[in-house]
Amino acid sequence: MAIKFADRMEGIKASEIRELLKLTVRPEIISFAGGLPAPELFPIEEMKVVAVKVLEEAGRQALQYSPTEGFAPLRDKIAARMGKVGVTAKGNDILITTGSQQGLDFAGKVFLNPGDYVVCESPSYLGAINAFKAYQCQFIEVETDEDGMLIEDLENKLASHDNVKMIYVIPDFQNPTGRTWSLERRKRLLEAARKYDLPVVEDNPYGELRFEGEMLPSIKSLDTDGRVIFLGTFSKTFCPGLRVGWVCAEEGILNKFITVKQGADLQSNSMTQRELDMFMELYDLDAHVEKIKEVYRQRRTLMLDTMKQYFPEEVTYTYPNGGLFTWAVLPPELNARDLMLKAIEKNVAFVPGGSFFPNGGQENTMRINYSNMPEDLIVEGIKRLGEVLHEAVNALKK
Amino acid sequence: MAIKFADRMEGIKASEIRELLKLTVRPEIISFAGGLPAPELFPIEEMKVVAVKVLEEAGRQALQYSPTEGFAPLRDKIAARMGKVGVTAKGNDILITTGSQQGLDFAGKVFLNPGDYVVCESPSYLGAINAFKAYQCQFIEVETDEDGMLIEDLENKLASHDNVKMIYVIPDFQNPTGRTWSLERRKRLLEAARKYDLPVVEDNPYGELRFEGEMLPSIKSLDTDGRVIFLGTFSKTFCPGLRVGWVCAEEGILNKFITVKQGADLQSNSMTQRELDMFMELYDLDAHVEKIKEVYRQRRTLMLDTMKQYFPEEVTYTYPNGGLFTWAVLPPELNARDLMLKAIEKNVAFVPGGSFFPNGGQENTMRINYSNMPEDLIVEGIKRLGEVLHEAVNALKK
Repeated sequence: MAIKFADRMEGIKASEIRELLKLTVRPEIISFAGGLPAPELFPIEEMKVVAVKVLEEAGRQALQYSPTEGFAPLRDKIAARMGKVGVTAKGNDILITTGSQQGLDFAGKVFLNPGDYVVCESPSYLGAINAFKAYQCQFIEVETDEDGMLIEDLENKLASHDNVKMIYVIPDFQNPTGRTWSLERRKRLLEAARKYDLPVVEDNPYGELRFEGEMLPSIKSLDTDGRVIFLGTFSKTFCPGLRVGWVCAEEGILNKFITVKQGADLQSNSMTQRELDMFMELYDLDAHVEKIKEVYRQRRTLMLDTMKQYFPEEVTYTYPNGGLFTWAVLPPELNARDLMLKAIEKNVAFVPGGSFFPNGGQENTMRINYSNMPEDLIVEGIKRLGEVLHEAVNALKK
Repeated sequence: MAIKFADRMEGIKASEIRELLKLTVRPEIISFAGGLPAPELFPIEEMKVVAVKVLEEAGRQALQYSPTEGFAPLRDKIAARMGKVGVTAKGNDILITTGSQQGLDFAGKVFLNPGDYVVCESPSYLGAINAFKAYQCQFIEVETDEDGMLIEDLENKLASHDNVKMIYVIPDFQNPTGRTWSLERRKRLLEAARKYDLPVVEDNPYGELRFEGEMLPSIKSLDTDGRVIFLGTFSKTFCPGLRVGWVCAEEGILNKFITVKQGADLQSNSMTQRELDMFMELYDLDAHVEKIKEVYRQRRTLMLDTMKQYFPEEVTYTYPNGGLFTWAVLPPELNARDLMLKAIEKNVAFVPGGSFFPNGGQENTMRINYSNMPEDLIVEGIKRLGEVLHEAVNALKK
């Protein structure tokens, strides 16, 4: 049998990273690999109340088909929450999605023809890269520093490529680097997008998880002509297992996303949408987010302090003011994929950074998560990782 | 601003049908339009028990990220239930999807290049046509009768087209016609698929809802070389709002679907998967399906009896032995889209059949749902529809 698959399947073969990560779910592993929230903070008791109340008050509706766009009261509440990132929105500006990953897939479907270029940060989010690759695009990576994309590099690359169709950025506590864009870079990105008449996909799963400093305005809040598509999610501020995210965009673009959602899965889970809405009616989501931030802030500080103590000085890393990740850069001779295998022998895991570069290279990088492990395991895991890194760095010196 | 959308968006503009259907959600409307289950049969009390028990026993896991493939015990239970359609499967052969609509979208993504042909029944399911159109395919419609596709027509069309990539069929209580394929046609379809080395997507949302007669073996159960991709769902046997469906396919093909799921939305709702699994642990899903069948059987019989009494003799319709729909054919001069507007004036709704023909035509057809409305409204709605049809048929005679 020689059944033919579509050409796009060539570009989205199961990644070796995914196979590697399967090794990290063993219970004895101290894993800094996933982007997993701390499960001990999930509001389990509240969810019990909410689930029963939704079924009692609107069981038939919660279990029946419902509109593609999403449950109207939840759309309204999300629109109101967009005020946190400086955006004035109405319920009609919101489409409920299955996590923000679905928003990424839809962005690819709505905007990308085969061969088109997506402009993204170097490095960028692995899951977005994979979602876009299904639409057979190419990537232009723009150099970044601690304030976001280098705008000069962005402008040069936009000027020298014809079929750029979309700019994709994660301006707040970026995945994988943990860095946050300055206000000036946000404004200048938007200017460049305007000049080349490009849509900007602003992915913001972590923005609410700021440990220090003031929240910066989202790029969407600076958008005067409706070119920014904002992707949000409750995965990091509430629970990822419920798979509730959203797209906020102007009508003409949002309608395209809604049409795509109709064909992709008709609608998101009716009951879950009502549960989330009910949670926000009965409880204080902001207070819940404060609790999460406090725990993650402590874990961030502890992890970075421990890294300072146990990592070789040849290894540098970011100091994130929010979100879930720090990003380490090793001497260029080292390959983090090899180190990952050695780390797993010591029952500790991270994600080798190479996969976050869509055009390859920079294998001397690591994404390290601090949200998921309790404090004692953070210390123990970083110690073990330090041993692996010291061995590797010392071997270079010989 | 002139942001460019992908070429594929040309083919999937929001359908006029969808706009029409928005008119049918007013509470005073007797709607035979949707494919909605009877909400009074939803196991609301049982869902309360199940939701609380899942949160008590495994709250952290239910709210956390979980594997793309799905919750292992649920995959095992679904694999076991595949025995009902004659298929011997293991949990590893199952991918959990967001309803079977997501399985349709993934089939398009996995198999279709722009310009490729999908072979389907004439008429076929509107939602599948829309899902596939996003991959810029073309359609070959094969003539059907009360036993399924006319195999001679299928073979002629396969012989005369080069780039056919996939055959899509709904052999049990088809949407929209309510018809069921004979065993012989199932076998001959598979022979043709083998001859041309094509995958067969077998969509089976209604198979368990058989009112009379013996269940026929699924095409998947006759498949000896792993070319059949079976799509199942709990939307009709349990609750559609929970959005749980599945794909059952051989390893090489299923792995492609899993890779696509990873990029599309990472995974389906962890909590819902556990709830469904827990429901099957605590309660008897088969007994629940028996209850649904009994109610739908009565509604089917009542609707068809009422149609016999009130529809003009120039209108013919199918007599389904299961599922949710009957299919009416009007004199060729009549256009069901026009009649829909007249029906809505009388507060009754159906779906005009033209949209179920991917290449257009056959506007003299109607899909009529009997599962969603209680018996008194079925009688009243069919009477009103009869008035609309009599007026239209009489006008032709003048």
